[in-house]
Formats: sequence, C-alpha cells, structure tokens
Amino acid sequence: MNNKNYIKLIIKSKIAFFSEIKGFIILRTYGYKIWENIKNILNNILIKTKHKNVYFPLLIPKKIFFIDKNHIKNFYKECAIVTHSKFIIKNNKVILDPKSKLEEELIIRPTSESIIWYTYSKIIQSYRNLPILINQWSNIIRLEIRNKIFIRNSEFILQEGHTGHKNKIECINEIIKIKNIYKKFIKNYLCIPFITGFKTNNEKFSGAKFTFTFETIINNYKCLQLATIHYFAKNFSKVYKVKYTNKKGKIKYIWCTSWGISTRLIGAIIMIHSDKNGLILPPKIAPIHIIIIPIIYNNNKNLIYKINKIVYKIKKIFYNKNIIIKYDNNIYKKPGNKFYKYENKGIPLRIIIGKKEIKNNIIEIVRRDNFKKYYYKINNKLYNKILKIFKKIQINLYYKAKKKMKSNTLIINNYKIFKNLFKKKKCGFIIAYYKINKYTELKIKKDTNATIRCLIKKKKIGKCIYTGKITNYIAIFGKSY
Amino acid sequence: MNNKNYIKLIIKSKIAFFSEIKGFIILRTYGYKIWENIKNILNNILIKTKHKNVYFPLLIPKKIFFIDKNHIKNFYKECAIVTHSKFIIKNNKVILDPKSKLEEELIIRPTSESIIWYTYSKIIQSYRNLPILINQWSNIIRLEIRNKIFIRNSEFILQEGHTGHKNKIECINEIIKIKNIYKKFIKNYLCIPFITGFKTNNEKFSGAKFTFTFETIINNYKCLQLATIHYFAKNFSKVYKVKYTNKKGKIKYIWCTSWGISTRLIGAIIMIHSDKNGLILPPKIAPIHIIIIPIIYNNNKNLIYKINKIVYKIKKIFYNKNIIIKYDNNIYKKPGNKFYKYENKGIPLRIIIGKKEIKNNIIEIVRRDNFKKYYYKINNKLYNKILKIFKKIQINLYYKAKKKMKSNTLIINNYKIFKNLFKKKKCGFIIAYYKINKYTELKIKKDTNATIRCLIKKKKIGKCIYTGKITNYIAIFGKSY
Repeated sequence: MNNKNYIKLIIKSKIAFFSEIKGFIILRTYGYKIWENIKNILNNILIKTKHKNVYFPLLIPKKIFFIDKNHIKNFYKECAIVTHSKFIIKNNKVILDPKSKLEEELIIRPTSESIIWYTYSKIIQSYRNLPILINQWSNIIRLEIRNKIFIRNSEFILQEGHTGHKNKIECINEIIKIKNIYKKFIKNYLCIPFITGFKTNNEKFSGAKFTFTFETIINNYKCLQLATIHYFAKNFSKVYKVKYTNKKGKIKYIWCTSWGISTRLIGAIIMIHSDKNGLILPPKIAPIHIIIIPIIYNNNKNLIYKINKIVYKIKKIFYNKNIIIKYDNNIYKKPGNKFYKYENKGIPLRIIIGKKEIKNNIIEIVRRDNFKKYYYKINNKLYNKILKIFKKIQINLYYKAKKKMKSNTLIINNYKIFKNLFKKKKCGFIIAYYKINKYTELKIKKDTNATIRCLIKKKKIGKCIYTGKITNYIAIFGKSY
Repeated sequence: MNNKNYIKLIIKSKIAFFSEIKGFIILRTYGYKIWENIKNILNNILIKTKHKNVYFPLLIPKKIFFIDKNHIKNFYKECAIVTHSKFIIKNNKVILDPKSKLEEELIIRPTSESIIWYTYSKIIQSYRNLPILINQWSNIIRLEIRNKIFIRNSEFILQEGHTGHKNKIECINEIIKIKNIYKKFIKNYLCIPFITGFKTNNEKFSGAKFTFTFETIINNYKCLQLATIHYFAKNFSKVYKVKYTNKKGKIKYIWCTSWGISTRLIGAIIMIHSDKNGLILPPKIAPIHIIIIPIIYNNNKNLIYKINKIVYKIKKIFYNKNIIIKYDNNIYKKPGNKFYKYENKGIPLRIIIGKKEIKNNIIEIVRRDNFKKYYYKINNKLYNKILKIFKKIQINLYYKAKKKMKSNTLIINNYKIFKNLFKKKKCGFIIAYYKINKYTELKIKKDTNATIRCLIKKKKIGKCIYTGKITNYIAIFGKSY
C-alpha cells in the first residue's frame, strides 16, 4: 500500500480527517472507536496487574521540564510552547496581548516523566509507598517536521505507564511484566507480528539506561516502532530527587520505568492488514463486527418482512454478547454498493439474507479477510460458530502478516549485498551479526539510510557485518517510515 | 465545609494534589477513578442514545477559533496561546527560539464548537448525514484568574456533546433528551439535588439562543453550576457555513446544540456529601465499595487465619460482580486508625471481623453515611443485602442533600429582606418573581453580589421583586462560588 492509497483509505473509511494544522487530525467516530477498543483491552489488562490510572497536567513549566538535561536533548526542537494568556482587539483584529506574556513558558507535554517524578518527589516517603504503578491515557504534542497520518502525528493520544521501585530486581521484573503484556496484546489483539530487542545508545530514549522496542515492517520494506519500554534505573529519581526511606531507615533513590503505545498503532493496523478492497480489522478491535445486508430487488415488501424477522432473530441471539451488529436496510442502495462500502470499512463478517437464504432457512456468512463463505442455520449455536470464525480471522491475519514480514526479512553476512539490498528497497529487516559501535552504526546509516531497529544478544558468536570482528550480538537493520 | 477544610480533605483523601502552576492539579489514582466511574456511567447512557465519541485536535488556529465573534467575547481573556515551537540553548540556558515563532497563534481548546463545526462544514452534504450526534471526552484549558480546586481549575477534563439537526423540532427534542439524561444522572448517580432553568442573556453562553442550566448549593450559601445545555439554533452553522441539502434539494443550515459536564462535579460531590469525618462517596461512583478491617490484637495467628478464611468467602460471593472490596490486613496499624483513614476516604461500607464476629458466625457492616450497623451471616444472600444497603445510601445521600438545599432556599417577595439575606450570607437560593430586564439584573447584582442562577416560566403571575411589575417568570438568585 503506497502512501497515497493509505491516506485515501483513511479518509474513505471515515477513520480520520485532516485538520487545518499540519500534523493534527480528527479521529472520527469509526476511528475513535478502534482506539477506544484498543484502550479498553489494554486498560483491563493493566488493572489486573494493579496499574492505576492518573491524570497529570497538560502543561509543564519550562524549569521543571528541563531539570533533566536528556529531556532538553530529546525535545527542545519539537515543543508546543505556551507564552501568552490573552488577546486584545485592535482595529477590529484579534491580536496577542503583549501584556499577557507569562512569566515562564509552559510546554504542552510531549511526555510526562518530568512532571510525574517532580510531583512524586514530594509525595513518596517510605518503602511502604512503593511500588508506584501508574498509567496515564493522555494527549501529547511533539511538533515533528515530517508528518504522516497516525504514524507521525504532531498530536497523538497515548498510554504512558510510569513505575517506581525499591530496587533493581523489582524494576527489571516490571520491565519483563510489561514486555509480556505488550507481546500478547500486539499479537493476540492487533494481529501484528514483530521483532523485539534493545535500541542502541544512538536510538534509545536519552535518559534511559536501555530501551526495549517492538518493531515491525509496513508497506513491505519500511520499519515501524510499535511500542517501547524504557529502563531508567535511578536516572530520573536522581535528577528529580525522588527518594524513600527503606526498612532499615536509610534514604534511597527509587528505580523507574516508563512504557507506552499510541494511536500510531491504528496506522500500523491499516497498513499491515489492508488489501485492495480496503481495511481488514481484527474482530477484537473492530467497531462493528457483523454487517447484515439484505438482498432485495423491486422493493418486495413480503421479502423485506421476512428478512426483518430473521434479522430480529439474529440480534436476539447476540443480545448483550458484546458483538456489534449493523443492519443496513437502506432500500435505495444496491447490495453491491453496500458490499463495497463495508468491505472498505473492514468489517470482519458480512451476513447476506435474500430469497434463496429464506427459502433454505439459512444465512450466508462471508469473511472479510479471505472471502470464505459459510452457510449456517439460525439457532443458538450461531453465536459459538461465529465466535469460532472470529478466532480464525484473528489467527489468519496474524500469520498472513507474519509470513509477509518473514519474506521481507533477510539474514545477510556480506556488507556489499547488505548495501545493495537497501539501495534497491528490496527488504524490510536485515539481520546480521554486528559488533556494537556508535561510529560504525553511523557509517552504516550514511551508506544505506538504514538504522539499527534493535539489538539481540545471542549465545552463538559470529562476525560483525561491517568490521568482521567477533561478536555475540545481532542487529536488525531497517529503514524508518 | 469551609475552603481550608475542603482543600485539606482533597489532599488527605488522596483525591488530588496541586501542581506547580496555579489552577492545574494532579488527579491521583483515587480521584481519577471517581472520574472514570462518572465517565463510564454517562458514556454508557450516551451510547444507548446513539451519541458517538470522536476526538478533535487540542490546538485550534486563531483564525478558525475567532470566526465566531461570540467566541472572542467568551474567551479572549483566558486562552493558553501557543506561539513557538522550539527552544535554543544559550549560555547554558534554555530559551525560546525567536526563529520558531509560528505563523499563526494556536489556542488550546477552551471548548470545541469552532473546530467541530468548521470541520463538519466540509463533511456534511445531505440530510442523510444528519443528525450529527457526537461527544468528546477531552481536556480543555481556560486560564481563569480565580482558581478553586475542581470548581475553577484552569485545566479540566470534560464531556462535551455537540449535535447537529435538520430542523428546530429535532434540535429542541435533542435538548429535552439531554436534559432528562443529565437530570437522572446527577440525581441517581451523584445524589446531588438541583434546580433547573434558563440562564439570562447576561449569563448564558454567548452565541447560544438559550442556555439551560443545572444549579445547586454548596457550602450552605454559595451556588454552583453543575451542567449546561446550549441551544444554538442556526447561530454556529451560519458562522461556520454548515449546510446540507434537504429532501427537496434545497440548501439549509443545520441546527446545533452543545452540552457538557466536567471534573467540577468531583468538587460538588466532595462539598455536598462530606461530613466532619471526611468524604462520603455515593456507592455508584466510589472507587472502593467495601473496606474489610480485621480486629486483631497481639498478632493472634489463629484468629488471623480464621478471619482470612471469612474474607476469602466474602470475596468469592462478590467475585465478578463489580463490587470493589479492599481488605486491609496490615497488622502494624490499629483498627481505629484504619477506621479513621477509610472514613476519610468516603468508602460506603466497612466490614468488621474479629473474635466476636467469628464466634457468632456473622460480620458487622457499618454504613459510612449514617454509621448504621448491620449484622449479617455470610452466605449467598449477602450480595443482595449489600446491594440493598447501597441503594439506601444513594437515596439517603440525595435526600439529605436535598433537605439541606431546601433549607437554604427561600421564597421572598420583599427586596429589602432579599438584600439583607444576601448581605448576612444566610441563604443559598432566593426565589422571587422577576421581570426579565438586563438593567435591573445588573442593579441587583450591584446591590447584593448575587446573580440570577436561572429563570423559570410559571403559569401563575406575580410581582417582580425589584420593579413590582407583573411577570410570569421567577428567578433563582444566588452567589457564585
């Protein structure tokens, strides 16, 4: 799917709409519902692991935000900065009131570590207050120069988890816990395949000791970061002076993590699962699960009556079962047009009811992902049968995408071939043995435009693709979207 | 409850925490959960009435925001204005990069009518696209000079519904529908009594044809607006050119409404339901419904074992039933201290289990709202018994508050007495016949500091409290919080 088609699909399926300001979008009802489903699923998982939601201010004073020097490095070039609070009306024009200049600039949060740990430094006293396991669903702004709808919005909605722990072991255990949550969530609900590993020092969130990342391939050969988990160790707590008294009465710094996903995932879902007919949504996050389309010609009232009765029966079977069914009984539109419309919107199942179906006392069910057809009777078994189809769709979408990712992933041990492949845009990921070195990393980037998406430590050793030196690390290389 | 105690209670019960910037607060886990409960309840009601959630950008370009002149009037003095996008580092200091000045100022939304109708003007074509029934859960900023935690925050989270209709009848029907939703919601879930009516032209949202309001009394004699519904008729659609083609092919303007509630409701709940022991939360919005406190002295292990078994039984009875139970088994804290703590947090029910209870095979249940005690056996009937108590608490809280509001509401027909009552701060609402007139309205405000909270049309006529003229309107007067 090229970029033009990607944007067209988003507009046509009514997922989003562009706003007047570059990088800002409107999430329409259909698109926002996808996000709400993503949010509810992940939120329920995080409740079970005792993470609790909070809300920190949208605006962060400059002096607090930049206490951490790494924050300066990460964000000083892409902030939305509030400087004034009033307008005046002059010659019938509304202009900035220079007298309303704020004493200090306020930054719209691009991330919340600073304000969170600054605040907790005043709240935490003893080991009894730990661990801190909080999460925030919020909107953030990063005024990036390159925009790409969902993938690189200037404003996006995200989930940002922040945790604080007594010691290293507990902190690392938290990282492992979140890693497993994200793995299951991205695979089982979004049907997206991925590779995981550590970011290099060049690519990690600066301030983090390490960043663990989830990477996938979109549009055949570009790479996308789906989620990240940052291990800060005591970096933030030292900067923001977040201390606690341990059991022995000693004052210690806490150990921190942060981790997040965002509306970018909607972009990934669209790019990975769509086909030439439009979107394909995994049932677990689809706003509408089943579209019922009646096949009626010549406004046959008797037939309409019979179909309505069957639709009523179906709706009764699915009543209160969290399956969203839509019945499109608009008699002014042709069935074919309806097929086209709902295929484009990616609704997982289509139920067709017409003369033939009524005669045979069945319904025709068509899967969106592979157009496979099922003919079922309408009885209470229908619910379980459809749940089974949903499961099959989830599995099929994941494995189809995984196969595609695999076919675009190559293992290479020759740097010439490596360079050539990236030049010809014939690959997504290239996996190669690599000896970690910030200079060779930059040289490879210069040669190929590809970066190290992540690093994985191996038991077996091999030769670095660039230097030939012995190493037990492999790197996944790829080009950023 | 005076202001000092109100703030103390919010901090102590861990509902919220002040941020560094005036008017911005941190909603802690306990406070945010109250908001999430409010949100989920109202959201589920709005789903049933087919209102769908959307997300519009946080930032609105000045030129779009101020297309509507009423918006200028309402908001030009309290905007958070984004003017720059970058910092530079000079002499080790982070300062605003003057080169990053934006071409046009961006305003953090204080409300979203402008961006919503500006956008819909490009989307809506035919009567088939109507009605538009959308809702947004978002954060907004209004930099008010006077701040009061929850009541007048500079940033607050709100629900803002926006609807567009074909004609006046449908638009008015929408207003009636939302009125009924808010009435039931505020009464049945939040247990808050109120008076409803129309705002005067001076007090309404400018741009609205009329504003319907829900008003209550807090702290004995101050008034608070709980929710508002605005009827815009064609005002916004004319300004933002939102047109549709009707069935006959004619081009028409749409009819609009907007309506909202916000985190301010948390402030109202706290002020209205608290007593000298702290918060009292209505069970329907309480983050924790039941606190179980074991009565153990001398670390009696046998007793602890028996109590744990009973707690397990209770938790089993309530498993998956949406009743949140907390068991505070900290053996280092005295039961008395725990009583004190959870009373302060307003948890609706306390269950006590000690030697006596185990001997008699019962548990003691204490209501937070009136400290009434119940002694129940532990069996499957317990669930329904506790649901009944919750219902009783909801009803009791509402009627207690209603009685208080009534006792602070006076019907007066003499202006001297009227003035005196407000002077002596001996009343909340004063109800009086009143002939609508913007000059007398301002004069009364000058005399008493009280404003017209709302107007109600009556069948019976009476004499205006200020002018003595015949009128069929009564006004509810009161002082703003």
